[in-house]
Amino acid sequence: MSKVERVGVSLDKPLLAEFDQLIHAKGYANRSEAIRDLIRLALSGAALESPGAYGFGAVFLVYDHHASKLAEQLIQLQHTHLLEVIASVHVHLDHHHCLEVIILKGQVQEIRKLADKMTSLKGVKLGKLTLVPVMDGQ
Amino acid sequence: MSKVERVGVSLDKPLLAEFDQLIHAKGYANRSEAIRDLIRLALSGAALESPGAYGFGAVFLVYDHHASKLAEQLIQLQHTHLLEVIASVHVHLDHHHCLEVIILKGQVQEIRKLADKMTSLKGVKLGKLTLVPVMDGQ
Amino acid sequence: MSKVERVGVSLDKPLLAEFDQLIHAKGYANRSEAIRDLIRLALSGAALESPGAYGFGAVFLVYDHHASKLAEQLIQLQHTHLLEVIASVHVHLDHHHCLEVIILKGQVQEIRKLADKMTSLKGVKLGKLTLVPVMDGQ
Amino acid sequence: MSKVERVGVSLDKPLLAEFDQLIHAKGYANRSEAIRDLIRLALSGAALESPGAYGFGAVFLVYDHHASKLAEQLIQLQHTHLLEVIASVHVHLDHHHCLEVIILKGQVQEIRKLADKMTSLKGVKLGKLTLVPVMDGQ
Repeated sequence: MSKVERVGVSLDKPLLAEFDQLIHAKGYANRSEAIRDLIRLALSGAALESPGAYGFGAVFLVYDHHASKLAEQLIQLQHTHLLEVIASVHVHLDHHHCLEVIILKGQVQEIRKLADKMTSLKGVKLGKLTLVPVMDGQ
Repeated sequence: MSKVERVGVSLDKPLLAEFDQLIHAKGYANRSEAIRDLIRLALSGAALESPGAYGFGAVFLVYDHHASKLAEQLIQLQHTHLLEVIASVHVHLDHHHCLEVIILKGQVQEIRKLADKMTSLKGVKLGKLTLVPVMDGQ
Repeated sequence: MSKVERVGVSLDKPLLAEFDQLIHAKGYANRSEAIRDLIRLALSGAALESPGAYGFGAVFLVYDHHASKLAEQLIQLQHTHLLEVIASVHVHLDHHHCLEVIILKGQVQEIRKLADKMTSLKGVKLGKLTLVPVMDGQ
Repeated sequence: MSKVERVGVSLDKPLLAEFDQLIHAKGYANRSEAIRDLIRLALSGAALESPGAYGFGAVFLVYDHHASKLAEQLIQLQHTHLLEVIASVHVHLDHHHCLEVIILKGQVQEIRKLADKMTSLKGVKLGKLTLVPVMDGQ
């Protein structure tokens, strides 16, 4: 395919042997695939740091669903931010706790702010955020 | 309520002033709530490091849905691991790319292995894993 | 002492019991000390993210001291950046490898750039950066 | 040189263009060097996770040197652990605060424990740990 370029990388044999072991353990079919993943991860990290970056975020919340008004507050927050809420999934962990993953699209800075606000609500026990930049040529 | 204990913390005034600024920016209603969150995060991190820990994981995958057999392979992986797949949510990012968040329950070590295998599949552009330990008294 | 304020935190007993276990394992003398450390860590993380932040950085480099001109290039880099190099320590790891920790002071953004340039030099096998913001009231 | 192997990696042109931009910004001389660094970082991360791993650690402490007995306690800790203390560097940050970087060699698990104990001492304001595994073929 004309859109693919072949790049040569020189690697010391012992380094290569260790890398082969790692990618085998992780289940990669070949070195190219594994190196591409390392490159994409580095690009993704750099892209998220640039000011004004756009991306997708998954806010991961564990909360006590008996906390009064929490569900309501979470929905309100989703509506008052300039972010597109794309989807959410809700899972019952035990009698008290729920896990909710809310997928958002927008400016990374805004996603961080909203995630902070969700995490800080009374009744939310744990909040984490995973970010992926909007990627062009990948 | 009899199940709650009040703990006193001595803080230098300048440190407290900075902390108040931070928790205001993050949207916390009060210091107690913010300190509880810091404690839970520390406990969660420690719990995930202990060998044999159980927990919930969200595997976050960006992939090219034109990659032949990828969807099939993802489903196969979910079936051949000793993990309970609780839910998954699928989002169309653009013409080529999907975001899928797969929520799993089981031994943290097994969740990590499965996430590695999913991330290493041909066609998966980016894979990330978020973990939450099974928590008792929180 | 008049500069210290006492803050009360309400914690569920099971959460408190887990926290006590963690801080005992980490060696803290009491809860106040452990909570202060969590607060300082949160403040430090937030401070480093603010644009224009000042701080201290330790660049941690593993390199092959047989690489020609590397030592020279490292010193040149230290001189051409607008950063104060405060100290460095050099350790022989084995016949080939050295570990050097270089402590810098200046704008966090500049420290990151210099650390990137050092890490990317031919002969440097591994580079990591640890940052501490300049803190006022702590 | 007979110890080096050339590996070919296929990359989509847009992905390659983005990567070239990143490595230029970071100061890499060529792609091979940048990819080698990504590989070493991945190997280093994996090596540190394996139980029983050996490595080098740099404990990075900010502390109030007016705290009575702290210096003594730090030295005592260094002597009662089964770790080789290779070097340390001490820097005066301001009238109150010192930065000390202590470089240790030994089992990664022991290094973590000692770093926890140092961080938890009264008077230590901030503690961080940077780890590098003992590497063979790199």
